[in-house]
Amino acid sequence: MISITIIGSGNVAQHLINAISKCDTLELVQVFARNKDSVAHLAAQEKIISDASQFKDADLYIISVADDAIPSVAAMLPFQNKLVAHTSGSVAMADLSNENRKAVFYPLQTLSKNKDINFKEVPLCLEAENESDLELLKKVANAISDKVFEINSEQRKSLHVSAVFVSNFVNHLYHIGNEICNEHNVPFDILKPLIIETAHKIETLSPQDAQTGPAKRKDTTTINKHLALLSDENQKEIYKLLTKSIIDNGKKL
Amino acid sequence: MISITIIGSGNVAQHLINAISKCDTLELVQVFARNKDSVAHLAAQEKIISDASQFKDADLYIISVADDAIPSVAAMLPFQNKLVAHTSGSVAMADLSNENRKAVFYPLQTLSKNKDINFKEVPLCLEAENESDLELLKKVANAISDKVFEINSEQRKSLHVSAVFVSNFVNHLYHIGNEICNEHNVPFDILKPLIIETAHKIETLSPQDAQTGPAKRKDTTTINKHLALLSDENQKEIYKLLTKSIIDNGKKL
Repeated sequence: MISITIIGSGNVAQHLINAISKCDTLELVQVFARNKDSVAHLAAQEKIISDASQFKDADLYIISVADDAIPSVAAMLPFQNKLVAHTSGSVAMADLSNENRKAVFYPLQTLSKNKDINFKEVPLCLEAENESDLELLKKVANAISDKVFEINSEQRKSLHVSAVFVSNFVNHLYHIGNEICNEHNVPFDILKPLIIETAHKIETLSPQDAQTGPAKRKDTTTINKHLALLSDENQKEIYKLLTKSIIDNGKKL
Repeated sequence: MISITIIGSGNVAQHLINAISKCDTLELVQVFARNKDSVAHLAAQEKIISDASQFKDADLYIISVADDAIPSVAAMLPFQNKLVAHTSGSVAMADLSNENRKAVFYPLQTLSKNKDINFKEVPLCLEAENESDLELLKKVANAISDKVFEINSEQRKSLHVSAVFVSNFVNHLYHIGNEICNEHNVPFDILKPLIIETAHKIETLSPQDAQTGPAKRKDTTTINKHLALLSDENQKEIYKLLTKSIIDNGKKL
Protein backbone atom coordinates (compact mmCIF):
# COMPACT_ATOMS: atom_id res chain seq x y z
CA MET A 1 0.00 0.00 0.00
CA ILE A 2 1.46 3.31 -1.09
CA SER A 3 0.16 6.31 0.84
CA ILE A 4 -0.44 9.58 -1.03
CA THR A 5 -1.47 13.10 -0.07
CA ILE A 6 -2.83 15.47 -2.69
CA ILE A 7 -2.15 19.20 -2.34
CA GLY A 8 -4.62 21.22 -4.41
CA SER A 9 -8.26 21.08 -5.47
CA GLY A 10 -8.37 21.95 -9.18
CA ASN A 11 -9.25 19.78 -12.21
CA VAL A 12 -6.13 17.65 -12.10
CA ALA A 13 -6.20 17.29 -8.31
CA GLN A 14 -9.83 16.14 -8.40
CA HIS A 15 -9.21 13.53 -11.12
CA LEU A 16 -6.17 12.25 -9.20
CA ILE A 17 -8.14 11.99 -5.95
CA ASN A 18 -10.77 9.99 -7.82
CA ALA A 19 -8.28 7.67 -9.49
CA ILE A 20 -6.35 7.05 -6.25
CA SER A 21 -9.52 6.44 -4.22
CA LYS A 22 -10.65 3.76 -6.68
CA CYS A 23 -7.36 1.88 -6.43
CA ASP A 24 -6.81 -0.95 -3.92
CA THR A 25 -3.03 -0.60 -3.80
CA LEU A 26 -3.05 3.14 -3.09
CA GLU A 27 -4.16 4.96 0.04
CA LEU A 28 -5.36 8.55 -0.02
CA VAL A 29 -4.01 9.97 3.24
CA GLN A 30 -5.11 13.61 3.00
CA VAL A 31 -6.21 16.34 0.63
CA PHE A 32 -4.87 19.83 1.32
CA ALA A 33 -7.27 22.45 -0.06
CA ARG A 34 -7.61 26.11 0.88
CA ASN A 35 -11.32 25.79 0.19
CA LYS A 36 -12.43 22.51 1.77
CA ASP A 37 -15.84 22.62 0.07
CA SER A 38 -14.27 22.21 -3.37
CA VAL A 39 -13.26 18.62 -2.62
CA ALA A 40 -15.90 17.71 -0.02
CA HIS A 41 -17.60 15.39 -2.54
CA LEU A 42 -14.39 13.47 -3.20
CA ALA A 43 -12.90 12.61 0.21
CA ALA A 44 -14.01 11.95 3.79
CA GLN A 45 -14.25 15.15 5.82
CA GLU A 46 -11.48 14.18 8.26
CA LYS A 47 -9.04 13.72 5.39
CA ILE A 48 -9.46 17.25 4.08
CA ILE A 49 -7.12 19.82 5.66
CA SER A 50 -6.40 23.47 4.99
CA ASP A 51 -3.78 23.99 7.66
CA ALA A 52 -0.19 23.03 6.85
CA SER A 53 0.43 21.99 10.47
CA GLN A 54 -2.00 19.08 10.01
CA PHE A 55 -0.02 17.13 7.39
CA LYS A 56 0.36 13.44 8.22
CA ASP A 57 3.07 11.13 7.00
CA ALA A 58 2.75 9.87 3.39
CA ASP A 59 4.99 8.08 0.87
CA LEU A 60 4.22 10.68 -1.79
CA TYR A 61 2.91 14.25 -1.77
CA ILE A 62 1.50 15.44 -5.09
CA ILE A 63 1.26 19.21 -5.58
CA SER A 64 -1.46 19.93 -8.12
CA VAL A 65 -1.92 23.70 -8.16
CA ALA A 66 -1.53 26.53 -10.72
CA ASP A 67 1.94 26.51 -12.29
CA ASP A 68 3.08 29.80 -10.80
CA ALA A 69 2.01 28.72 -7.28
CA ILE A 70 4.06 25.50 -7.33
CA PRO A 71 7.33 26.97 -5.92
CA SER A 72 5.60 28.78 -3.06
CA VAL A 73 3.37 25.80 -2.18
CA ALA A 74 6.42 23.51 -2.23
CA ALA A 75 8.28 25.96 0.01
CA MET A 76 5.51 26.10 2.63
CA LEU A 77 5.51 22.33 3.25
CA PRO A 78 6.49 21.85 6.94
CA PHE A 79 8.43 18.58 6.43
CA GLN A 80 11.82 17.51 5.03
CA ASN A 81 13.24 14.73 2.85
CA LYS A 82 9.83 13.49 1.70
CA LEU A 83 8.98 12.64 -1.90
CA VAL A 84 7.16 15.64 -3.42
CA ALA A 85 5.93 15.67 -7.03
CA HIS A 86 4.19 18.36 -9.05
CA THR A 87 1.79 17.67 -11.94
CA SER A 88 2.74 20.46 -14.33
CA GLY A 89 3.84 20.13 -17.93
CA SER A 90 5.72 23.40 -18.00
CA VAL A 91 7.39 23.74 -14.58
CA ALA A 92 10.87 22.24 -14.17
CA MET A 93 11.38 19.60 -11.49
CA ALA A 94 14.15 21.83 -10.07
CA ASP A 95 11.56 24.49 -9.16
CA LEU A 96 10.39 22.34 -6.24
CA SER A 97 11.82 22.98 -2.78
CA ASN A 98 15.30 21.64 -1.94
CA GLU A 99 13.94 20.57 1.47
CA ASN A 100 12.33 17.50 -0.10
CA ARG A 101 13.03 14.86 -2.78
CA LYS A 102 11.79 16.24 -6.10
CA ALA A 103 9.66 14.48 -8.70
CA VAL A 104 7.12 15.10 -11.46
CA PHE A 105 3.85 13.26 -12.02
CA TYR A 106 2.42 14.90 -15.16
CA PRO A 107 -0.88 13.62 -16.60
CA LEU A 108 -0.86 14.60 -20.28
CA GLN A 109 -4.57 14.95 -20.82
CA THR A 110 -7.22 17.64 -20.92
CA LEU A 111 -9.10 17.25 -17.66
CA SER A 112 -12.33 19.11 -16.97
CA LYS A 113 -14.18 18.98 -13.66
CA ASN A 114 -17.50 18.38 -15.40
CA LYS A 115 -16.32 15.58 -17.71
CA ASP A 116 -15.49 12.06 -16.54
CA ILE A 117 -12.49 10.34 -18.01
CA ASN A 118 -11.08 6.83 -18.06
CA PHE A 119 -7.87 7.49 -16.14
CA LYS A 120 -6.39 4.20 -17.44
CA GLU A 121 -6.04 5.98 -20.80
CA VAL A 122 -4.31 9.09 -19.43
CA PRO A 123 -0.58 9.12 -20.27
CA LEU A 124 1.46 9.82 -17.14
CA CYS A 125 4.90 11.38 -17.59
CA LEU A 126 7.23 10.67 -14.68
CA GLU A 127 10.50 12.15 -13.50
CA ALA A 128 12.41 11.82 -10.22
CA GLU A 129 15.82 12.74 -8.81
CA ASN A 130 16.76 9.19 -7.92
CA GLU A 131 16.00 5.66 -9.06
CA SER A 132 14.13 4.45 -5.98
CA ASP A 133 11.77 7.42 -6.07
CA LEU A 134 11.19 6.81 -9.78
CA GLU A 135 10.31 3.18 -8.97
CA LEU A 136 7.75 4.31 -6.41
CA LEU A 137 6.25 6.82 -8.89
CA LYS A 138 6.02 4.04 -11.49
CA LYS A 139 4.14 1.80 -9.05
CA VAL A 140 1.64 4.59 -8.36
CA ALA A 141 1.32 5.49 -12.06
CA ASN A 142 0.88 1.88 -13.22
CA ALA A 143 -1.81 1.37 -10.61
CA ILE A 144 -4.00 4.09 -12.11
CA SER A 145 -2.96 4.25 -15.79
CA ASP A 146 -1.97 1.90 -18.62
CA LYS A 147 0.20 4.57 -20.27
CA VAL A 148 3.25 5.41 -18.18
CA PHE A 149 6.30 7.19 -19.61
CA GLU A 150 9.61 8.32 -18.14
CA ILE A 151 10.12 11.86 -19.45
CA ASN A 152 12.81 14.32 -18.36
CA SER A 153 12.20 18.04 -17.76
CA GLU A 154 13.45 19.09 -21.22
CA GLN A 155 11.26 16.54 -23.01
CA ARG A 156 8.30 17.47 -20.84
CA LYS A 157 8.61 21.13 -21.86
CA SER A 158 8.42 20.22 -25.56
CA LEU A 159 5.52 17.83 -24.89
CA HIS A 160 3.66 20.64 -23.17
CA VAL A 161 4.14 23.00 -26.13
CA SER A 162 2.98 20.23 -28.50
CA ALA A 163 -0.03 19.66 -26.27
CA VAL A 164 -0.95 23.34 -26.57
CA PHE A 165 -0.96 22.99 -30.37
CA VAL A 166 -2.85 19.67 -30.58
CA SER A 167 -5.36 20.42 -27.81
CA ASN A 168 -5.75 24.07 -26.72
CA PHE A 169 -5.30 25.55 -30.19
CA VAL A 170 -7.31 22.75 -31.79
CA ASN A 171 -10.18 23.42 -29.42
CA HIS A 172 -10.01 27.11 -30.30
CA LEU A 173 -10.39 26.17 -34.00
CA TYR A 174 -13.50 24.18 -32.99
CA HIS A 175 -14.72 27.37 -31.35
CA ILE A 176 -14.15 29.37 -34.54
CA GLY A 177 -15.98 26.70 -36.56
CA ASN A 178 -18.86 26.99 -34.09
CA GLU A 179 -18.89 30.79 -34.46
CA ILE A 180 -19.01 30.57 -38.28
CA CYS A 181 -21.91 28.08 -38.05
CA ASN A 182 -23.82 30.31 -35.62
CA GLU A 183 -23.33 33.33 -37.88
CA HIS A 184 -24.82 31.44 -40.85
CA ASN A 185 -27.58 29.54 -39.02
CA VAL A 186 -26.11 26.11 -39.55
CA PRO A 187 -26.14 23.56 -36.68
CA PHE A 188 -22.57 22.98 -35.41
CA ASP A 189 -23.61 19.35 -34.75
CA ILE A 190 -23.20 18.60 -38.48
CA LEU A 191 -19.45 19.10 -38.00
CA LYS A 192 -19.02 16.81 -35.00
CA PRO A 193 -18.54 13.53 -36.93
CA LEU A 194 -15.87 15.31 -39.00
CA ILE A 195 -14.13 16.51 -35.82
CA ILE A 196 -14.14 13.02 -34.32
CA GLU A 197 -12.92 11.35 -37.53
CA THR A 198 -10.15 13.93 -38.00
CA ALA A 199 -8.81 13.04 -34.55
CA HIS A 200 -9.14 9.27 -35.01
CA LYS A 201 -7.43 9.38 -38.41
CA ILE A 202 -4.05 10.09 -36.81
CA GLU A 203 -4.27 6.84 -34.85
CA THR A 204 -3.43 5.06 -38.14
CA LEU A 205 -2.09 7.79 -40.45
CA SER A 206 0.62 10.38 -39.80
CA PRO A 207 -0.80 13.95 -39.73
CA GLN A 208 1.29 14.55 -42.86
CA ASP A 209 -0.51 11.73 -44.73
CA ALA A 210 -3.90 12.60 -43.26
CA GLN A 211 -3.84 16.20 -44.53
CA THR A 212 -6.64 17.10 -46.96
CA GLY A 213 -8.35 20.33 -48.02
CA PRO A 214 -7.92 23.34 -50.31
CA ALA A 215 -4.53 24.43 -48.89
CA LYS A 216 -3.09 20.94 -49.37
CA ARG A 217 -4.39 20.97 -52.98
CA LYS A 218 -3.16 24.58 -53.46
CA ASP A 219 -6.74 25.29 -54.59
CA THR A 220 -6.57 29.10 -54.63
CA THR A 221 -10.08 29.46 -56.07
CA THR A 222 -11.62 27.84 -52.99
CA ILE A 223 -9.19 29.58 -50.63
CA ASN A 224 -10.23 32.99 -52.03
CA LYS A 225 -13.94 32.10 -51.80
CA HIS A 226 -13.42 31.18 -48.15
CA LEU A 227 -11.59 34.42 -47.38
CA ALA A 228 -14.40 36.39 -49.04
CA LEU A 229 -16.98 34.63 -46.88
CA LEU A 230 -15.21 35.30 -43.57
CA SER A 231 -16.34 38.59 -42.06
CA ASP A 232 -14.13 38.51 -38.98
CA GLU A 233 -10.59 39.92 -39.43
CA ASN A 234 -9.13 37.63 -36.79
CA GLN A 235 -10.64 34.55 -38.48
CA LYS A 236 -9.26 35.73 -41.82
CA GLU A 237 -5.79 36.18 -40.39
CA ILE A 238 -5.82 32.68 -38.87
CA TYR A 239 -7.14 31.22 -42.15
CA LYS A 240 -4.33 32.90 -44.13
CA LEU A 241 -1.53 31.92 -41.76
CA LEU A 242 -2.54 28.25 -41.46
CA THR A 243 -3.18 27.98 -45.21
CA LYS A 244 0.30 29.41 -45.91
CA SER A 245 1.81 27.01 -43.36
CA ILE A 246 0.15 23.97 -45.04
CA ILE A 247 1.27 25.12 -48.50
CA ASP A 248 4.86 25.81 -47.32
CA ASN A 249 4.95 22.42 -45.62
CA GLY A 250 3.99 20.78 -48.93
CA LYS A 251 7.00 22.47 -50.56
CA LYS A 252 9.38 21.00 -47.98
CA LEU A 253 8.57 17.41 -49.03
CA MET B 1 -34.84 0.62 -56.43
CA ILE B 2 -33.15 3.93 -57.19
CA SER B 3 -30.53 3.74 -59.94
CA ILE B 4 -27.37 5.84 -59.60
CA THR B 5 -24.34 6.52 -61.77
CA ILE B 6 -21.17 7.91 -60.25
CA ILE B 7 -18.98 10.23 -62.30
CA GLY B 8 -15.46 10.40 -60.88
CA SER B 9 -12.96 8.12 -59.18
CA GLY B 10 -11.44 10.09 -56.28
CA ASN B 11 -11.80 9.59 -52.50
CA VAL B 12 -15.41 10.71 -52.27
CA ALA B 13 -16.46 8.83 -55.44
CA GLN B 14 -14.91 5.62 -54.14
CA HIS B 15 -16.60 5.85 -50.74
CA LEU B 16 -19.94 6.58 -52.46
CA ILE B 17 -19.55 3.59 -54.83
CA ASN B 18 -18.86 1.43 -51.78
CA ALA B 19 -21.83 2.72 -49.80
CA ILE B 20 -24.24 2.41 -52.75
CA SER B 21 -23.05 -1.10 -53.64
CA LYS B 22 -23.71 -2.29 -50.09
CA CYS B 23 -27.29 -0.98 -50.12
CA ASP B 24 -30.25 -3.17 -51.21
CA THR B 25 -32.49 -0.28 -52.22
CA LEU B 26 -29.91 1.40 -54.47
CA GLU B 27 -28.51 0.20 -57.78
CA LEU B 28 -25.12 1.28 -59.07
CA VAL B 29 -25.68 1.61 -62.83
CA GLN B 30 -22.26 2.82 -63.99
CA VAL B 31 -19.05 4.49 -62.89
CA PHE B 32 -17.55 7.02 -65.28
CA ALA B 33 -13.78 7.25 -64.75
CA ARG B 34 -11.11 8.56 -67.08
CA ASN B 35 -8.75 5.97 -65.62
CA LYS B 36 -10.77 2.72 -65.37
CA ASP B 37 -8.09 1.02 -63.23
CA SER B 38 -8.66 3.43 -60.37
CA VAL B 39 -12.10 1.96 -59.62
CA ALA B 40 -11.58 -1.58 -61.00
CA HIS B 41 -11.61 -2.97 -57.43
CA LEU B 42 -14.98 -1.35 -56.66
CA ALA B 43 -17.32 -2.20 -59.58
CA ALA B 44 -17.82 -4.90 -62.22
CA GLN B 45 -15.76 -4.25 -65.36
CA GLU B 46 -18.82 -3.79 -67.61
CA LYS B 47 -20.13 -1.01 -65.35
CA ILE B 48 -17.01 1.13 -65.67
CA ILE B 49 -17.00 3.51 -68.62
CA SER B 50 -14.68 6.26 -69.76
CA ASP B 51 -16.58 7.33 -72.89
CA ALA B 52 -19.47 9.80 -72.47
CA SER B 53 -21.41 8.15 -75.30
CA GLN B 54 -21.84 5.00 -73.17
CA PHE B 55 -23.98 6.55 -70.39
CA LYS B 56 -27.10 4.50 -69.58
CA ASP B 57 -30.28 5.80 -68.02
CA ALA B 58 -30.21 6.42 -64.25
CA ASP B 59 -32.41 8.19 -61.68
CA LEU B 60 -29.45 10.14 -60.34
CA TYR B 61 -26.01 11.07 -61.65
CA ILE B 62 -23.50 12.10 -58.99
CA ILE B 63 -20.51 14.12 -60.15
CA SER B 64 -17.66 13.62 -57.69
CA VAL B 65 -14.62 15.30 -59.22
CA ALA B 66 -12.26 18.16 -58.30
CA ASP B 67 -14.19 21.38 -57.58
CA ASP B 68 -12.86 23.31 -60.57
CA ALA B 69 -13.70 20.45 -62.96
CA ILE B 70 -17.40 20.28 -61.93
CA PRO B 71 -18.77 22.84 -64.44
CA SER B 72 -16.94 21.30 -67.43
CA VAL B 73 -17.84 17.71 -66.44
CA ALA B 74 -21.48 18.75 -66.00
CA ALA B 75 -21.40 20.45 -69.42
CA MET B 76 -20.06 17.37 -71.22
CA LEU B 77 -22.94 15.11 -70.12
CA PRO B 78 -24.71 14.01 -73.32
CA PHE B 79 -28.25 13.89 -71.82
CA GLN B 80 -30.95 16.42 -70.79
CA ASN B 81 -33.42 16.89 -67.98
CA LYS B 82 -31.83 14.24 -65.74
CA LEU B 83 -31.11 14.72 -62.03
CA VAL B 84 -27.41 15.62 -61.65
CA ALA B 85 -25.81 16.30 -58.26
CA HIS B 86 -22.29 17.30 -57.31
CA THR B 87 -20.59 16.42 -54.01
CA SER B 88 -18.68 19.62 -53.31
CA GLY B 89 -18.83 21.78 -50.21
CA SER B 90 -17.69 24.92 -51.95
CA VAL B 91 -19.27 24.87 -55.43
CA ALA B 92 -22.72 26.44 -55.84
CA MET B 93 -25.57 24.26 -57.14
CA ALA B 94 -26.05 26.86 -59.90
CA ASP B 95 -22.61 25.99 -61.34
CA LEU B 96 -24.04 22.74 -62.74
CA SER B 97 -25.27 22.66 -66.35
CA ASN B 98 -28.70 24.14 -67.20
CA GLU B 99 -29.32 21.10 -69.45
CA ASN B 100 -30.16 18.97 -66.41
CA ARG B 101 -31.95 19.24 -63.03
CA LYS B 102 -29.44 20.47 -60.48
CA ALA B 103 -28.74 19.11 -57.01
CA VAL B 104 -26.06 18.76 -54.35
CA PHE B 105 -25.12 15.63 -52.40
CA TYR B 106 -22.32 16.80 -50.08
CA PRO B 107 -20.79 14.33 -47.61
CA LEU B 108 -19.31 16.44 -44.80
CA GLN B 109 -16.52 14.15 -43.72
CA THR B 110 -12.80 13.68 -44.26
CA LEU B 111 -12.56 10.70 -46.59
CA SER B 112 -9.23 9.04 -47.37
CA LYS B 113 -8.83 6.19 -49.84
CA ASN B 114 -6.72 4.24 -47.39
CA LYS B 115 -9.03 4.56 -44.39
CA ASP B 116 -12.38 2.82 -44.07
CA ILE B 117 -15.29 4.71 -42.63
CA ASN B 118 -18.75 3.90 -41.34
CA PHE B 119 -20.79 5.77 -43.95
CA LYS B 120 -23.87 5.66 -41.66
CA GLU B 121 -22.08 8.30 -39.55
CA VAL B 122 -21.25 10.62 -42.46
CA PRO B 123 -23.48 13.74 -42.49
CA LEU B 124 -24.98 14.25 -45.95
CA CYS B 125 -26.00 17.78 -46.89
CA LEU B 126 -28.67 17.86 -49.61
CA GLU B 127 -29.97 20.55 -51.94
CA ALA B 128 -32.18 20.35 -55.05
CA GLU B 129 -34.02 22.74 -57.35
CA ASN B 130 -37.41 21.15 -56.79
CA GLU B 131 -39.24 19.22 -54.09
CA SER B 132 -39.56 15.86 -55.90
CA ASP B 133 -35.82 15.77 -56.65
CA LEU B 134 -35.09 16.63 -53.02
CA GLU B 135 -37.34 13.71 -51.96
CA LEU B 136 -35.38 11.33 -54.20
CA LEU B 137 -32.07 12.63 -52.82
CA LYS B 138 -33.37 12.11 -49.28
CA LYS B 139 -34.28 8.48 -50.07
CA VAL B 140 -30.79 7.85 -51.40
CA ALA B 141 -29.14 9.67 -48.49
CA ASN B 142 -31.22 7.95 -45.82
CA ALA B 143 -30.37 4.58 -47.35
CA ILE B 144 -26.65 5.06 -46.77
CA SER B 145 -26.42 7.47 -43.82
CA ASP B 146 -28.17 8.18 -40.51
CA LYS B 147 -27.29 11.88 -40.63
CA VAL B 148 -29.13 13.67 -43.44
CA PHE B 149 -29.52 17.47 -43.60
CA GLU B 150 -31.16 19.84 -46.03
CA ILE B 151 -28.65 22.66 -46.53
CA ASN B 152 -28.83 25.46 -49.09
CA SER B 153 -25.86 26.73 -51.12
CA GLU B 154 -25.19 29.69 -48.81
CA GLN B 155 -25.25 27.51 -45.70
CA ARG B 156 -23.08 24.91 -47.39
CA LYS B 157 -20.40 27.50 -48.15
CA SER B 158 -20.16 28.48 -44.50
CA LEU B 159 -20.14 24.81 -43.44
CA HIS B 160 -17.25 24.20 -45.80
CA VAL B 161 -15.22 27.07 -44.32
CA SER B 162 -15.99 25.78 -40.81
CA ALA B 163 -14.89 22.32 -41.91
CA VAL B 164 -11.54 23.72 -43.05
CA PHE B 165 -11.02 25.18 -39.56
CA VAL B 166 -12.14 22.13 -37.56
CA SER B 167 -10.53 19.49 -39.80
CA ASN B 168 -7.84 20.68 -42.26
CA PHE B 169 -6.34 23.29 -39.93
CA VAL B 170 -6.74 21.04 -36.90
CA ASN B 171 -4.86 18.27 -38.70
CA HIS B 172 -2.10 20.73 -39.53
CA LEU B 173 -1.79 21.56 -35.82
CA TYR B 174 -1.41 17.80 -35.18
CA HIS B 175 1.38 17.90 -37.75
CA ILE B 176 3.12 20.76 -35.93
CA GLY B 177 2.79 18.88 -32.63
CA ASN B 178 4.37 15.87 -34.33
CA GLU B 179 7.25 18.02 -35.63
CA ILE B 180 7.94 19.46 -32.15
CA CYS B 181 7.96 15.94 -30.69
CA ASN B 182 10.35 14.69 -33.39
CA GLU B 183 12.69 17.62 -32.80
CA HIS B 184 12.88 16.82 -29.08
CA ASN B 185 12.92 13.00 -29.29
CA VAL B 186 9.56 12.49 -27.64
CA PRO B 187 7.14 9.87 -29.06
CA PHE B 188 4.15 11.61 -30.66
CA ASP B 189 2.05 8.64 -29.47
CA ILE B 190 2.00 10.16 -25.95
CA LEU B 191 -0.20 12.95 -27.37
CA LYS B 192 -2.78 10.73 -29.09
CA PRO B 193 -5.07 10.18 -26.10
CA LEU B 194 -5.11 13.96 -25.60
CA ILE B 195 -6.01 14.50 -29.27
CA ILE B 196 -8.86 11.98 -29.09
CA GLU B 197 -10.21 13.36 -25.80
CA THR B 198 -10.03 16.97 -27.05
CA ALA B 199 -12.27 15.97 -29.98
CA HIS B 200 -14.72 13.93 -27.88
CA LYS B 201 -15.04 16.70 -25.29
CA ILE B 202 -17.06 18.86 -27.70
CA GLU B 203 -19.70 16.11 -27.96
CA THR B 204 -20.86 17.22 -24.50
CA LEU B 205 -19.27 20.64 -23.90
CA SER B 206 -19.29 23.71 -26.14
CA PRO B 207 -15.77 24.53 -27.45
CA GLN B 208 -16.05 27.72 -25.39
CA ASP B 209 -16.56 25.74 -22.19
CA ALA B 210 -14.01 23.08 -23.15
CA GLN B 211 -11.17 25.60 -23.60
CA THR B 212 -8.17 25.09 -21.29
CA GLY B 213 -4.48 26.01 -21.39
CA PRO B 214 -2.11 28.91 -20.77
CA ALA B 215 -3.82 31.36 -23.18
CA LYS B 216 -7.20 30.75 -21.56
CA ARG B 217 -5.59 31.39 -18.15
CA LYS B 218 -3.66 34.39 -19.54
CA ASP B 219 -0.58 32.66 -18.11
CA THR B 220 2.08 34.83 -19.75
CA THR B 221 4.94 33.10 -17.91
CA THR B 222 4.12 29.78 -19.60
CA ILE B 223 3.34 31.45 -22.93
CA ASN B 224 6.78 33.11 -22.95
CA LYS B 225 8.51 29.85 -22.00
CA HIS B 226 6.77 28.14 -24.92
CA LEU B 227 7.76 30.86 -27.38
CA ALA B 228 11.36 30.58 -26.17
CA LEU B 229 11.34 26.82 -26.79
CA LEU B 230 9.99 27.04 -30.35
CA SER B 231 12.83 27.30 -32.85
CA ASP B 232 10.69 27.55 -36.00
CA GLU B 233 9.51 31.07 -36.92
CA ASN B 234 6.33 29.76 -38.57
CA GLN B 235 5.43 27.76 -35.45
CA LYS B 236 6.08 30.85 -33.31
CA GLU B 237 3.83 32.98 -35.49
CA ILE B 238 0.98 30.44 -35.29
CA TYR B 239 1.47 30.15 -31.52
CA LYS B 240 1.27 33.92 -31.08
CA LEU B 241 -1.77 34.42 -33.30
CA LEU B 242 -3.85 31.60 -31.78
CA THR B 243 -2.85 32.63 -28.24
CA LYS B 244 -3.94 36.20 -28.96
CA SER B 245 -7.20 34.94 -30.45
CA ILE B 246 -7.99 32.85 -27.34
CA ILE B 247 -7.15 35.78 -25.03
CA ASP B 248 -9.24 38.25 -27.11
CA ASN B 249 -12.12 35.78 -27.15
CA GLY B 250 -12.01 35.65 -23.35
CA LYS B 251 -12.40 39.45 -23.25
CA LYS B 252 -15.59 39.27 -25.37
CA LEU B 253 -17.43 37.24 -22.70
